[in-house]
Amino acid sequence: MLITKIRSRECRELLARLGFGRLACVSNNRPYIVPIYFSYDAECLYCFSTLGRKIEWMRENPLVCVEVDEISAHDDWLSVIALGHYLEFSNSPNDAKGQEYARSLIEKRALWWQSGYTAVQVRRNRKPAVPVFYCIQIEKMTGLRASPNTRENARTPRDALIRN
Amino acid sequence: MLITKIRSRECRELLARLGFGRLACVSNNRPYIVPIYFSYDAECLYCFSTLGRKIEWMRENPLVCVEVDEISAHDDWLSVIALGHYLEFSNSPNDAKGQEYARSLIEKRALWWQSGYTAVQVRRNRKPAVPVFYCIQIEKMTGLRASPNTRENARTPRDALIRN
Repeated sequence: MLITKIRSRECRELLARLGFGRLACVSNNRPYIVPIYFSYDAECLYCFSTLGRKIEWMRENPLVCVEVDEISAHDDWLSVIALGHYLEFSNSPNDAKGQEYARSLIEKRALWWQSGYTAVQVRRNRKPAVPVFYCIQIEKMTGLRASPNTRENARTPRDALIRN
Repeated sequence: MLITKIRSRECRELLARLGFGRLACVSNNRPYIVPIYFSYDAECLYCFSTLGRKIEWMRENPLVCVEVDEISAHDDWLSVIALGHYLEFSNSPNDAKGQEYARSLIEKRALWWQSGYTAVQVRRNRKPAVPVFYCIQIEKMTGLRASPNTRENARTPRDALIRN
C-alpha cells in the first residue's frame, strides 16, 4: 500500500461529492463524534441539525474537526481531515441571508431533514425540536490517498516490524 | 425513518464485527479525527500505530471518543459512540504482558500493520517509525439504529418543518 498526500482541489472534490462525514466537537477537553450530512461550498460545510448535545458543545467551543473518507478496500481509499470552526445562523434579522443560503444549499440534498428531526424521536423528553442551521468554516484541510502496491503487500507483518 | 436505541450487547457486537471506526482526540480544546482499526475485547479497543500527532495528543490528554457505523442506506444504519480513555502499553517490563496481549489480538487482523507503517511514508522526515500499542478503555457507550419507515419517508421537508 502506498499513501500519498492529495491536493487541495482533490480534497474539495471529495467534500463536494460525498456530503457525508464525521464531526468532532469538544467540551471540557472531552471529544464527541457524530456522523453529519453537509453541503460544501466555498470552504464551508453547510449543515442542519436540531438542538442537542453537539450544538450546545459547539456554541461553547466552536473549534471542530470533520473527517470524510471513501473506502473501496483496505489499501484503496481517500480521506480528508478539515479543521474549522462552527458558525451558527440564528433567527435574528442579521443572520437571515446566511440562514436562507444555508437552507438553499442543504435542501438540494434529498431527505436532508430526516436525520435531524428523527433523532428527536429517541429522546425521552417531549420538548419541540428546535431547527439549527450552521456552517463549519474550514481553516485547514489535508487529504491522503492509499493505493494498492503489490510489492509492499507481499511483505509479512514480521518483515514490517524488522524493517522498522 | 425510525431511529431507536440499541442495547449494549448490540453495541459490542458491532464493535467486534467491524473493527474499524473513527477516533477523536483533543489538544488545547481542538479536536482531531482519524480513521482507526482496532480489535475489541472486554470493553477495550486494542490498536496499533506509529508515533505521530494522535499518539502525542492522547499522551497529553487521554480522553477520547470512537465512532463506529455500518451504513446500508440513508435510512438503514447502525452507529455506536464510545467515550473512553487512552492507555498505552510501553516497552517497560510492567507493560510487557499488556503489550503482548494487545499484539496477539491485533495480529489476528490481516494486514494490521499496514496503516501504521505506511502512514510514515508520507512524512517528510526520515526518523525511524516508532511502533505504539495502546487500548481505548471504554467508559460509556451508546448506539442507534435507523430503520426504513414508509409512512415517515412519504412526508416532505416542508411537512417536517411544519410539524416541528
